[in-house]
Amino acid sequence: MNQFAIGVDLGGTSLRIAAVESSGKILEKITTGTEVARRDRVIDEMCDAVRTLASKYRATDELAGIGVGVPGIIDMATGMLRWSPNLPGWQDYPVREEIEGRIGTPVFLENDANAAALGEKWLGAAVGVDDMCMLTLGTGVGGGLVLEGRIWHGMAGMAGEVGHTNIDPDGVPCGCGSRGCLEQYASATAIKRMALEAIASGKAPELARAMSQDPEFSSKVVHQMASEGDAAARAIFHRVGTALGIALADLINVLDLPTYVIGGGVAAAWDTFAPTMLETLKRYSYIYRVTTATPPGGDGASRSGKKTVITRALLGSDAGLIGASRLPMMPEHAKRVSGVDV
Amino acid sequence: MNQFAIGVDLGGTSLRIAAVESSGKILEKITTGTEVARRDRVIDEMCDAVRTLASKYRATDELAGIGVGVPGIIDMATGMLRWSPNLPGWQDYPVREEIEGRIGTPVFLENDANAAALGEKWLGAAVGVDDMCMLTLGTGVGGGLVLEGRIWHGMAGMAGEVGHTNIDPDGVPCGCGSRGCLEQYASATAIKRMALEAIASGKAPELARAMSQDPEFSSKVVHQMASEGDAAARAIFHRVGTALGIALADLINVLDLPTYVIGGGVAAAWDTFAPTMLETLKRYSYIYRVTTATPPGGDGASRSGKKTVITRALLGSDAGLIGASRLPMMPEHAKRVSGVDV
Repeated sequence: MNQFAIGVDLGGTSLRIAAVESSGKILEKITTGTEVARRDRVIDEMCDAVRTLASKYRATDELAGIGVGVPGIIDMATGMLRWSPNLPGWQDYPVREEIEGRIGTPVFLENDANAAALGEKWLGAAVGVDDMCMLTLGTGVGGGLVLEGRIWHGMAGMAGEVGHTNIDPDGVPCGCGSRGCLEQYASATAIKRMALEAIASGKAPELARAMSQDPEFSSKVVHQMASEGDAAARAIFHRVGTALGIALADLINVLDLPTYVIGGGVAAAWDTFAPTMLETLKRYSYIYRVTTATPPGGDGASRSGKKTVITRALLGSDAGLIGASRLPMMPEHAKRVSGVDV
Repeated sequence: MNQFAIGVDLGGTSLRIAAVESSGKILEKITTGTEVARRDRVIDEMCDAVRTLASKYRATDELAGIGVGVPGIIDMATGMLRWSPNLPGWQDYPVREEIEGRIGTPVFLENDANAAALGEKWLGAAVGVDDMCMLTLGTGVGGGLVLEGRIWHGMAGMAGEVGHTNIDPDGVPCGCGSRGCLEQYASATAIKRMALEAIASGKAPELARAMSQDPEFSSKVVHQMASEGDAAARAIFHRVGTALGIALADLINVLDLPTYVIGGGVAAAWDTFAPTMLETLKRYSYIYRVTTATPPGGDGASRSGKKTVITRALLGSDAGLIGASRLPMMPEHAKRVSGVDV
C-alpha cells in the first residue's frame, strides 16, 4: 500500500489543502478563499477538506498524517501559534491540538517558510543538499533553515527568522517591533511601499501613472515596469537586491552553507534584483568571494574547491504545500515535533 | 592510564602550548613570544615545545593528540590555513601537514575562535549546553558556533565568522574586504581606533591627555576611563554595545540558540558595554524579547518557557588553549576534521 499525506498551507489570504503521494506527486488540491480573521471558521473549513481528501485516498493508500504550514512563530513543543502578524487573532492559539481534536490524526505543525524550505529540499532547487536556507519573499519575508537534512528549529522553535535580519538599524519600522528588518526592503509589501514613497516624492512619474490607472497597483506592476526599464522601478529592485545581499552575506559568514534558495512571489522579479544581490554579496562576504571566485588559469573550480550557490526556488507557490505534506513522512523530523505518538 | 592532550594557541602576538589532562586540568603551560612573520621558526618552536611536553607526560599518561587553534580560516579537509589577517605570510600554508610531518602525532586544527567556543562549552560559561555561539573580542572579533555539541564548520570550514556580520553597509572598511563589519566596532583594535578618532575630533580632552601620557595607549586605557565616567570613553563602549547587540539580534533571529558567550580581552569591559548591548538586543530581536521577558504575574519564567542567555566567558585567555586541547579528545569531532586516522 502506498503512503500519502495531507499538506495544508494556511496563508494570510488563502487556505490550500492537498493530498500528496510519498513520491511528491500532488493527487488533489483544494483551495478555499479564507477570511483568516474568522479563526474557528478557517479551522472548520480546513478540517472538512482534510476529511474529504483523507476518506477519498484512504481507500487505496495509507495516510501518514497531516502537515500544516502556518505563517508565524510556533512553539514546537506545544503546537501553539505564538505570534503571527498575518493571522490577527490567532496569537497563543493551540493550532495542533484543535486540528488533532477534530480529525484524530497526527498533525505536524511547521512554520510556512520552514515548510517551503523542506519542499524545495525534497523536490525543488535544493534536491540532494543537506544544508540549506530558503528565503520566501511574499507578503513578508520568511526564512527556513535546514541543517543536516532537518529543519533547524532552535531553542524555542523560533529559528530561521531571516526576514528580521537587520539591514539598517535606523531603518523602516517593522511589525516585529524592530526597525530596518530585511522584510521592510525585500517583501511584496515593501516593494509597494517603496513605490508609493517614490510616487509621493514626485520622482516617479511612470509609477504614478501606473498607480492612477490600476486600482490593484502592486509589487507585480512595479516589477513589470522595472523590466521595461523605468528608472524609479529599477531603483526599487536595486534596493531589494542590496538588502538581500546584505542579509545573505551575514548568513554565509555565519553558516557557510552550500545552497541558499530564494522563493515566494517576489522571486519572479529575479532578473531585476539578482545582479545587485550577487554584487552586494561579493562586497560583504569574504567567504562568498572565496567560494565562488575561479582563480585565473584554474580549472573553473573555486579556490576553496566548494561553491556557494544562490538560486531561485523551483516549486513556485506549491513549495510550502508540498513541504507541509512531507512532514508526516519524515519520521526523524516527526519524532521531534509532533505531540502525538506515531 | 590517564589520557592527556597537547593544546596549542597560535596567537597573533604569542604562542602558547599546554599539556592538558582529560579532566581539563592544565598540567603545564609554555609561552613563547613569537615573531609570527617568521613562519618556519614559529612551527619549529611549537614542535619543540610539543615534544618537550609530550615526552614528559607520556611517562605516566597516554597522549591523545595535538590540537592547534589558529587565527584564520582553515580548509578543514586539507588542514591548510586559507586566510589570516593576523598571520601575514601564512596564506595557503599546510599547517597540519607541517606539524604532523615533524611530530608524527595526529594534529587537529581548528580556528582559534572555534577552539575558544569548545573551551567555554567544555569547562566554562556554556557547560551542559549543546547549542551555543561564542564571540571572542580581541585584536579582531572571532566567532565559534557549536550545534548539537560539535563545531559547525560549514561547507568550506569557514562558518562562524560572526565578526564579519554587517553592522553598517556604509561603515568602516574591514581587512576582510568588506566594510561595516562587527569587528570594526567591537574589537580592541576598533576601540583604540574610535578613541583616536574622538581625540582627533577635539571632543575627547581626557582621552587626549591619557594618550599623550601613555605610550602604550590601548583599548584598556579607554575602558579604564569609561569606568571612571569619561563621556567620550563611555560613548565608545556604547558603540561597542550597539554593534554587538545588532549582531547578536541577527544571530538570535536566525539560530535561536540558548546561549551566547562573550569572551576575549574586551569582555573585561563588560560593565561598560553590556547594558547597551542588551538594550539593543531587545530593540532588534522579537525572539530575544519573547525568550527573556517575564510576563506580569508570572512565575518568573519567560513567556516561551525558554530563556536566551547572553553571558561573559569564564576561562579568560585560556579558553582557546583549553578548547584546542579538547579537540583530540572528541572522537566524533576528530573523525570529521583530522587528516590522520586515529
